[in-house]
Amino acid sequence: MEINNKIITLLKNLRENPPLVHQITNYVTVNDCANITLAIGGSPVMAEDIHEVREMVSLASSLVINIGTLNSVTIESMIEAGKRANELNIPVILDPVGVGATAYRTENGKRIISEVKLAVIRGNLSEIKTMYGIETLTRGVDASESFEASSDEFTREKEMARNFAVKFNTVVVITGEVDIITDGKTLYCASNGHKMMARVTGTGCMCTSVIGCYLGAGDNNLLAALAGIVSMGIAGETAYERLDTKIEGSGTFRVKILDAIYNLSESEIIKRSKINEE
Amino acid sequence: MEINNKIITLLKNLRENPPLVHQITNYVTVNDCANITLAIGGSPVMAEDIHEVREMVSLASSLVINIGTLNSVTIESMIEAGKRANELNIPVILDPVGVGATAYRTENGKRIISEVKLAVIRGNLSEIKTMYGIETLTRGVDASESFEASSDEFTREKEMARNFAVKFNTVVVITGEVDIITDGKTLYCASNGHKMMARVTGTGCMCTSVIGCYLGAGDNNLLAALAGIVSMGIAGETAYERLDTKIEGSGTFRVKILDAIYNLSESEIIKRSKINEE
Amino acid sequence: MEINNKIITLLKNLRENPPLVHQITNYVTVNDCANITLAIGGSPVMAEDIHEVREMVSLASSLVINIGTLNSVTIESMIEAGKRANELNIPVILDPVGVGATAYRTENGKRIISEVKLAVIRGNLSEIKTMYGIETLTRGVDASESFEASSDEFTREKEMARNFAVKFNTVVVITGEVDIITDGKTLYCASNGHKMMARVTGTGCMCTSVIGCYLGAGDNNLLAALAGIVSMGIAGETAYERLDTKIEGSGTFRVKILDAIYNLSESEIIKRSKINEE
Repeated sequence: MEINNKIITLLKNLRENPPLVHQITNYVTVNDCANITLAIGGSPVMAEDIHEVREMVSLASSLVINIGTLNSVTIESMIEAGKRANELNIPVILDPVGVGATAYRTENGKRIISEVKLAVIRGNLSEIKTMYGIETLTRGVDASESFEASSDEFTREKEMARNFAVKFNTVVVITGEVDIITDGKTLYCASNGHKMMARVTGTGCMCTSVIGCYLGAGDNNLLAALAGIVSMGIAGETAYERLDTKIEGSGTFRVKILDAIYNLSESEIIKRSKINEE
Repeated sequence: MEINNKIITLLKNLRENPPLVHQITNYVTVNDCANITLAIGGSPVMAEDIHEVREMVSLASSLVINIGTLNSVTIESMIEAGKRANELNIPVILDPVGVGATAYRTENGKRIISEVKLAVIRGNLSEIKTMYGIETLTRGVDASESFEASSDEFTREKEMARNFAVKFNTVVVITGEVDIITDGKTLYCASNGHKMMARVTGTGCMCTSVIGCYLGAGDNNLLAALAGIVSMGIAGETAYERLDTKIEGSGTFRVKILDAIYNLSESEIIKRSKINEE
Repeated sequence: MEINNKIITLLKNLRENPPLVHQITNYVTVNDCANITLAIGGSPVMAEDIHEVREMVSLASSLVINIGTLNSVTIESMIEAGKRANELNIPVILDPVGVGATAYRTENGKRIISEVKLAVIRGNLSEIKTMYGIETLTRGVDASESFEASSDEFTREKEMARNFAVKFNTVVVITGEVDIITDGKTLYCASNGHKMMARVTGTGCMCTSVIGCYLGAGDNNLLAALAGIVSMGIAGETAYERLDTKIEGSGTFRVKILDAIYNLSESEIIKRSKINEE
């Protein structure tokens, strides 16, 4: 499949020319974000003081903004780094963790998207709905809505994703049982992954960091988003298959996800990727 | 044993109705706290900005306050979240990490207990002594005092725990070689666990988070505290038994503790729990 | 070899009298720093509020300062803690993560070394060059320069390390393919380790924490630095050898590094250490 070959070429490029990925993120999953960046072949740098983010991002190939443990200090650094990245044409990805759960998160998520041009935004359904302006219920930072892949509801979600992408001239990624990736014109549905990934904190954040790596390794934002989604999904599957579920659980699963990303091969992508273009 | 059945029922309820557990904690062990919350069956949310904690805690089933890396900003968020939880009858557990080591920790630990009504407080002996107002020596954040389970000293500690529980109308948990859990009337001694747990950072914090999950899954604070203590203790034992100690050490042990919590079964609780009621 | 025996004696002392190691560090790798401190036999305490660092460090056997996610609040705590450690003759180690990447990091790194007397400074080549005042290019927080162990360039680096050590009356450690450890007079080259360590975030930070443990366990700063470097290097080697590289990657490797430090034995040090004195 042609799209698989494009993903493989991008992964090869990532590993041959490790992008420096500047990440301003949350303190819950930051270590996993750094380790998965290294595992896929990138080079992470976490820096968030307002005095250095403009300079740091200018050295980077991409910028990841994740508001998981947002506070009134780092939000300013996120905006500053994002604006500087925009000036330099460095792609920015936003993970609007937990928007909809509190007014503070929603306001700041919307502030970022209004002040920073995003290459990609990745969230679960309720987060993306909130960012688009649809009232929804976000319960904490976990997915709180899902949908059947064949339902009318799913059709509506894809329509929303396209509209969002067009309105903000960005790539929208909604992760769920079936992931939606669209730039408003092309739309991919990807159905790799394993439901146990929801039992490890930060698999969403890690996915965002992996997309950040791909963004820094090429110049096709839609492809980068798709490559990140498929890579994480396949890693979740292979990690699960290697789990001795009688005695191993989410601790070992988390370790094996990193291992799987580290060892992700071209043949696995060809054999396993489940992508539908619509 | 009747108490085991109560624990099993509570665990089942936790897994069937995952409580959202709001945690304001330290940045050393926060990832482990989130992962163990997911492993036992809960849903963690870490949020600490003063602008959102009141709203976030109102969505939660319980609140965990852990002062491991306390600072002058988050202390205000802890108090705010705690007060709001009290208004809404959402149970609050405090882990007074390191009180006694510095005046700053002691003052803030005491400030929390004076301004927030606690469902449970969990600490090691020197931390609990300090919180109760007895002069002691806390060396860093680790247990610095212990006692023989049969000694006069142990009898005195149980008496102190009861008095503390009555004075503050809370459940007091002192973890050590033998754990003490009391609401001032009933007192349990639990002796599960393995001494190697002290060689992994955050096993105490994780225990507090697990109790937080049980608090969010029922309405019996004493039972929740006991269930958390027994769950962590059994997990430590089974994790140790699955360790190949010739080549595996604290790194693998930590992973296996998460696995053991994830796989914790009714039959393990029945077979392994070591609880004495006094 | 005499030097191996000195390392072994120091390790034994560390394990028999666990030093309390106060660490003011970054939030990316802080959990690994705490766990490796426990694994080698030390006792970590992370505390960074300005109101408690003077008191906390006075309880400690050594102080680790790591500027990986430096900000304008913690820098003041680092300086305060460092000055207090100096007053009490408690050894201080600095890990100047990322200096050279931004002006902010460079300025603050230099501020620390001008205000705090360091027992040891550990960094990669570009960080140490920057701290010594040589213009270089630091790309993010990873090693961006390296050298052939036999080259003229390597000879110049050793000379710089000696001069740095003399100028600041400290022990200088440059980690790379071959590690340089010098107090300005004696200079050791150590060549343990495995290149895969660069694919796990925080192996440098962990190395600094391990040196911090050895500093707290004896009174010979040069020996402590060498012992830390050799311990981490051997752990990296044995961890790699125990890796099933067909399916395991950086996730498992990280866990096994902690295991290897936990199980580090006298015989491994004797059999594996690669130290040259110059």
